[in-house]
Amino acid sequence: MPEFFNVRSPSQAFDDLRPHISAITECELMPTTSSLGRVIADEIRSPEDLPSFPKSSMDGFSVRARDTFGASESLPALLEVVADIPTGSSSDVELSVAEAAVAYTGGMLAGNADAIVMIERTQPADETSIEVLRPVAPGENVVHAGEDVRAGDALFDPGHTVRPQDIGGLLALGITEIPVLRKPRVAIVSTGDELVPPEDRPPPGNIRDINTYTIAARVAQCGAEPVIIGLAPDEYEPQLQAARDGIRTADALIFSAGSSLSTRDMTADVFNQLGEPGVLLHGISIKPGKPTIVAVADGKPLFGLPGNPVSALVVFDLLVVPTIHLLSGTDNPPTANTLNAILTADIPSESGREDYVPVTLSDSGGTLHSTPVFGKSNLIYTLVNSDGLIQVPADSGGLYAGEEVSVRLY
Amino acid sequence: MPEFFNVRSPSQAFDDLRPHISAITECELMPTTSSLGRVIADEIRSPEDLPSFPKSSMDGFSVRARDTFGASESLPALLEVVADIPTGSSSDVELSVAEAAVAYTGGMLAGNADAIVMIERTQPADETSIEVLRPVAPGENVVHAGEDVRAGDALFDPGHTVRPQDIGGLLALGITEIPVLRKPRVAIVSTGDELVPPEDRPPPGNIRDINTYTIAARVAQCGAEPVIIGLAPDEYEPQLQAARDGIRTADALIFSAGSSLSTRDMTADVFNQLGEPGVLLHGISIKPGKPTIVAVADGKPLFGLPGNPVSALVVFDLLVVPTIHLLSGTDNPPTANTLNAILTADIPSESGREDYVPVTLSDSGGTLHSTPVFGKSNLIYTLVNSDGLIQVPADSGGLYAGEEVSVRLY
Repeated sequence: MPEFFNVRSPSQAFDDLRPHISAITECELMPTTSSLGRVIADEIRSPEDLPSFPKSSMDGFSVRARDTFGASESLPALLEVVADIPTGSSSDVELSVAEAAVAYTGGMLAGNADAIVMIERTQPADETSIEVLRPVAPGENVVHAGEDVRAGDALFDPGHTVRPQDIGGLLALGITEIPVLRKPRVAIVSTGDELVPPEDRPPPGNIRDINTYTIAARVAQCGAEPVIIGLAPDEYEPQLQAARDGIRTADALIFSAGSSLSTRDMTADVFNQLGEPGVLLHGISIKPGKPTIVAVADGKPLFGLPGNPVSALVVFDLLVVPTIHLLSGTDNPPTANTLNAILTADIPSESGREDYVPVTLSDSGGTLHSTPVFGKSNLIYTLVNSDGLIQVPADSGGLYAGEEVSVRLY
Repeated sequence: MPEFFNVRSPSQAFDDLRPHISAITECELMPTTSSLGRVIADEIRSPEDLPSFPKSSMDGFSVRARDTFGASESLPALLEVVADIPTGSSSDVELSVAEAAVAYTGGMLAGNADAIVMIERTQPADETSIEVLRPVAPGENVVHAGEDVRAGDALFDPGHTVRPQDIGGLLALGITEIPVLRKPRVAIVSTGDELVPPEDRPPPGNIRDINTYTIAARVAQCGAEPVIIGLAPDEYEPQLQAARDGIRTADALIFSAGSSLSTRDMTADVFNQLGEPGVLLHGISIKPGKPTIVAVADGKPLFGLPGNPVSALVVFDLLVVPTIHLLSGTDNPPTANTLNAILTADIPSESGREDYVPVTLSDSGGTLHSTPVFGKSNLIYTLVNSDGLIQVPADSGGLYAGEEVSVRLY
């Protein structure tokens, strides 16, 4: 039986792949209110000043600051109240010397006013006048027109992933539609004569296909669109056809199973038929996940993932997730969510490869503990019954009980 | 102007609220393939053994382990190959003494076989026989029927939030539909005479409503369903009507703006009309976000969030997010994604309150730096132009440049 030679580390494998991948360039217009998580395709500039008028940030009075200079409790400044400008209203009143207008949080300043004196710093003098007890500086308690954003300002660069506050920032300026990049589409093919669709009762010796759906859910979690091609038997022609169907409609292709070295493993042959340069590497120095294929067909990344569900998830997170981020065009991809925890058992490891071990998390007297789940990598419930993965670095010789480890949460 | 007295810390505020909130109990059937992120409503048990048959985890030969005992390179065990059981097939062959059957990874074992000898540990003897060069132990290279899961095993408890591998675990057993809890619905009302819908051009003195959509996007990010009720002016009756519309259809209600203490701030009065016990607290000891109202109407949590977008987001994350998790019934809510970074500037803080400061992140020679964005909390671009928030703990007196801080990423 052939062996894997010259296997690369996961990060070397991704370095080999990266130069072949370009971000998607097709873009589409999207209502801003529906754009959460989408990647902005073009620079967006502000069409107008925000706010469009000078706004009070307090309840009080619009004043000309200089009319309050020197004011004190013993010698207040006397101002005549010539207008009341409710929030949501405008007024063409212009303040003259020693005049004020009633102002409200979020309301417009009177003309000529350059500051707001808070209501707590005034007292009524008579029906139409107030006494100001402390001076205000020009600009105090005021949001100037254009202070948030000025017309023409660059708001977002291409590649920015839209967050909730970005939706607010766009809508504040009346930008109700934005250009976003199309989501990456990732085609998924599950191979194996033993597979039946999950809704079928498998005949003896057969099992239900689950990798298609586990992988599709991870693809969707990464902000991409899974394209389920379906099942292919362990035969070359149907696999080649499924692969061609996949890359015709998608930006990347995942084959589940068939990535090892037995005669029934024909993923590498199939990938080499799809385009140039074909297979970049076969085998990476991790456990589980060693029998992995990374290939490229005319700019489209192709992955042969091991059929074992634990291996497939580990390799997906190390290689497919960063590939999806590259394809998506985002310049702020989400980082993996991690927690530190104390390891409760030794994890031995062979040198020369990275190990990934599922763990459970538990809180013990306020300290977070992580306990390895040493299940077989071909048992899906090894993953179901764990909370995250820890990495045993290559050449570390293993990890020891009592060490603090970083757990990558599922 | 009245003042806030006896303000509570955010965590005290949530402690006050928590006893009033119950998880949603309504459940619905959902295709397993569409259940990512949903909360399982009832215990799910396995209907069958997984795998349903003893499976080989290697390419090689099904054997009776005892037939290989004592085998060595110099004295191999000679076995007659009586069958070939391809992956995806079954066979009723039963091995007798010194018999073997060809086996494939994922394929079924022959009857009476209890181990797989890897092909690398055999050599052909003649057309129909092999020599086994090393003994195998019973169970070696075999996944036993029921080894992953046994019929009747508890697979998931109620409250579990579905992850990609859980979808695989369920489908592996033919469970193609699962009972999940209904998503929490959160109604959103934006109040203020100055607001117009974002698609309108605001008349002078008016602004576009953005908090509705910023909050709706955060609600959706938390796995809940936003219910946009719309705009309400600064008048009691329309606000009460909007609030009633909100809690009729939703499990929680958010009012944006109107939570302060001026005469136009009527959120507290509105909330007290909706049901018992009404307003629990008015004012929390944080900046920004002090003028916050937490109320309950007949088991439904009500939040009066400040109108300033930065304040609204801070309070949303501290109070509304954990409330949504409680309502959702999840027992594994996602944790906030955080990164550690070195602070680049001092942040002074008054004692007695928690401060939340937007920061930008930048990589400087491999070290992550976080730089405070000291924008006004009423400017949405303060949030747009930042990457996360840091907390200045109450009574810390502030944070200093050079300190390592935890940045909660947006």
